[in-house]
Amino acid sequence: MEVLYKSIVKKLAPLVLVSGLALGGFALATSTEDPAQADPGGKSNAKIKNVIFLIGDGMGSQYTSAYRYFQDRPDSPYTEDTAFDEYLIGMQETYSWDEEESVTDSAAAATTMAAGVKTYNGAVGVDIDEERVKTALEIAKEEGKSTGMVSTSHVNHATPASFGAHNESRDNYDEIADDYYDEMVDGEHKVDVLLGGGTDYFEREDRDLAQEFQDDGYSYVTSRDELMSDDNNQVLGLFAPEGMDKMIDRDENTPSLEEMTSSALDRLSKEKDGFFLMVEGSQIDWAGHDNDVVAAMSEMEDFEKAFEEAIAYAKKDKHTLVVTTADHSTGGMTMGRDGEYKWDPEPLKAAKRTPDFMASAIADGADAEETLNKYVDLSFTEEEIESVEEAADGETEEIDDAIEKIFDLRSGTGWTTDGHTGEDVNVYGYGPQSDAFSGLHDNHEVGKMIMNTLESGRTQMK
Amino acid sequence: MEVLYKSIVKKLAPLVLVSGLALGGFALATSTEDPAQADPGGKSNAKIKNVIFLIGDGMGSQYTSAYRYFQDRPDSPYTEDTAFDEYLIGMQETYSWDEEESVTDSAAAATTMAAGVKTYNGAVGVDIDEERVKTALEIAKEEGKSTGMVSTSHVNHATPASFGAHNESRDNYDEIADDYYDEMVDGEHKVDVLLGGGTDYFEREDRDLAQEFQDDGYSYVTSRDELMSDDNNQVLGLFAPEGMDKMIDRDENTPSLEEMTSSALDRLSKEKDGFFLMVEGSQIDWAGHDNDVVAAMSEMEDFEKAFEEAIAYAKKDKHTLVVTTADHSTGGMTMGRDGEYKWDPEPLKAAKRTPDFMASAIADGADAEETLNKYVDLSFTEEEIESVEEAADGETEEIDDAIEKIFDLRSGTGWTTDGHTGEDVNVYGYGPQSDAFSGLHDNHEVGKMIMNTLESGRTQMK
Repeated sequence: MEVLYKSIVKKLAPLVLVSGLALGGFALATSTEDPAQADPGGKSNAKIKNVIFLIGDGMGSQYTSAYRYFQDRPDSPYTEDTAFDEYLIGMQETYSWDEEESVTDSAAAATTMAAGVKTYNGAVGVDIDEERVKTALEIAKEEGKSTGMVSTSHVNHATPASFGAHNESRDNYDEIADDYYDEMVDGEHKVDVLLGGGTDYFEREDRDLAQEFQDDGYSYVTSRDELMSDDNNQVLGLFAPEGMDKMIDRDENTPSLEEMTSSALDRLSKEKDGFFLMVEGSQIDWAGHDNDVVAAMSEMEDFEKAFEEAIAYAKKDKHTLVVTTADHSTGGMTMGRDGEYKWDPEPLKAAKRTPDFMASAIADGADAEETLNKYVDLSFTEEEIESVEEAADGETEEIDDAIEKIFDLRSGTGWTTDGHTGEDVNVYGYGPQSDAFSGLHDNHEVGKMIMNTLESGRTQMK
Repeated sequence: MEVLYKSIVKKLAPLVLVSGLALGGFALATSTEDPAQADPGGKSNAKIKNVIFLIGDGMGSQYTSAYRYFQDRPDSPYTEDTAFDEYLIGMQETYSWDEEESVTDSAAAATTMAAGVKTYNGAVGVDIDEERVKTALEIAKEEGKSTGMVSTSHVNHATPASFGAHNESRDNYDEIADDYYDEMVDGEHKVDVLLGGGTDYFEREDRDLAQEFQDDGYSYVTSRDELMSDDNNQVLGLFAPEGMDKMIDRDENTPSLEEMTSSALDRLSKEKDGFFLMVEGSQIDWAGHDNDVVAAMSEMEDFEKAFEEAIAYAKKDKHTLVVTTADHSTGGMTMGRDGEYKWDPEPLKAAKRTPDFMASAIADGADAEETLNKYVDLSFTEEEIESVEEAADGETEEIDDAIEKIFDLRSGTGWTTDGHTGEDVNVYGYGPQSDAFSGLHDNHEVGKMIMNTLESGRTQMK
């Protein structure tokens, strides 16, 4: 759209100039009107002040499609759109430059989207030669913007790590957490708002990063209430030892991804030079690795709500670019399996907890049938109950698998791997210059456009 | 883009009108310039004369992604784009209104894209009440346009059938073929150019449709040479008893989908009122049903070449809309399987024939090892050869499965079904008003826009 917009403006420019002599203020008003106001869709050419980059980890188009049917009202003739749907503008390629593995992991993909360079699987903020690369978050801080990262994984997990740290391996969780504190940009901590899971990595025996952050003026919060009642511009919020519970398993002490996103926006938006916020729906991917379609829908909903929060902010602000995508897809999930032309979300809606949650309860001694009936609004068959009872003698994972299998067969969900898959993923955009992300891009191009936007307010690649 | 284009034009309209008094011809020239010339990308607002609608049957985004890696030059750092990639503009939803099956079949999806109404699986040009619905092809003929359908399946198979016939079931192949001849629009046959497979259905004991078409002035061709040397505006070309061979299995007597498309365009473009051409890459889907990734890549290439032909025509013509999409995805194909982060196209490039072709040869008595070595440039392991030798004692299908398994494991391709899957599929567009297809649409909206375009030259839905 940008091309056409510019071509029209360019074509009419002489007209505006000449006729301005006769028409005075009218022509001037037309040519200098705030472009953000000119287009209700938000796709103006205005300079961008803030960037919200949302990553649905593992959110392949199977997930975004399946979630539409999951949240659809069955009584209406056509499916209801998800919050994402109207903002679909393109897709991106995800492959990494790994010598062994061409299907990317989350660290490589996130490093590429953070720093505009392809790298090897496991790389955190480093290129294929293990050299540090400057990230979008670091550029934002250099430009005087406030910065934030929000995730439902531990905040030092691969995706946020690749924006805020530099390490040859995603597995060095302690070093990554240390980077968040130790690596300064122009003498300041580079991340102002850091929300997610991970107390295990910030309150360690060898080092208490939570205390160190507090000593430097950060708030430290560990519950939903503490998060909500705090309004410090700088905050470390950790709501679980490692990853947070999945949305449908959370208790009231745990904030949602939406609440964390909202809290981050409240704080970051106080900076007059703008902000960069990365939001990760981390556990869509974890659900995919587990081949758990109930958990996948839970995490899609959690991520959708955060996305809506970002869009609502951008709609009001008019100088905020929102880009939403995935790093890859996970699990080889398919709507339909074994020759059946059907994918039925109803059994998934019936689950009030994830199979993981139920499996843990059963492993801890709860009765299998009672547990299933307590947490799922379905009439289970004898065979289904027996399959879980038989698994109950084994490992928690076997119980989990048995419960997941019920949901897979009832919904018609197929899987091909407990790893990632290599197909293109969707890109959603809103706000000024979001059309730059339209069509197909490689993920390194997405990264470069995000970086340039933070540097110059313009998406164009150099 | 159209929305913005219109909003700018609208905003500036008073300016053009008033200043036109002073500037005379200049303002007029600006406002009446041919929009097709203004935008090199072809996304102008010009009136549309011709529509080329290409359907990759079963071509989910796994197929378009995998094919990019298949045709990539491994010596360049980034992947090369396929012919499709630069035209990616959106996606579409594919579900049907079937009481039993929510995942669509090809007939329901094609009827929806042809006639703008959702229907049940198996429906050919009829709605959920089995009532006939007018199709895009019939509208084109009513408008005095020439019409064509090209496929690699038999031409009376589900997808073309749904544009050119009306039947409560896709399985009534003879009746569908009869419809092509019997159902007239304003006293004329509705399909001028009909190319694909299907002599079995047109030269029957009970009726010789090929002869009837010839009696009415059509040419009838059954080989590549005959097709190429004929230039009649109306032609029936059938190059196989049922479906045509897959691209890599074809002999020189069989035209490619590209050649059929080119031949159709030569004939149809002679009509001054424009044309409608439906091109189906039919057997991407058949490869998916068979879980045969070698055949899938063969048929993607065949379809890509036809797509390039359509784009080349539209680029020259400037009043041709090209829309390309899929009806659904097939097979639950995934790039990556069993926890491996790898999808390797090299073993697939090594195949000179499909597993089906090789399996038939082995079933006919050819030696398994010799056949594999003759048609595949790979060093097979003893285990791989043994797996095919063991299958050679059984049905052809078992031999086929054994060969396919080698390619699946070597390439890292997963499958979850021999049926269809329900996720959104890609939409590619080129030409005037192609931006109307941008973003996410339901397939009935795509159908309506195609129909309206043929009626009015405008994509807008009523």
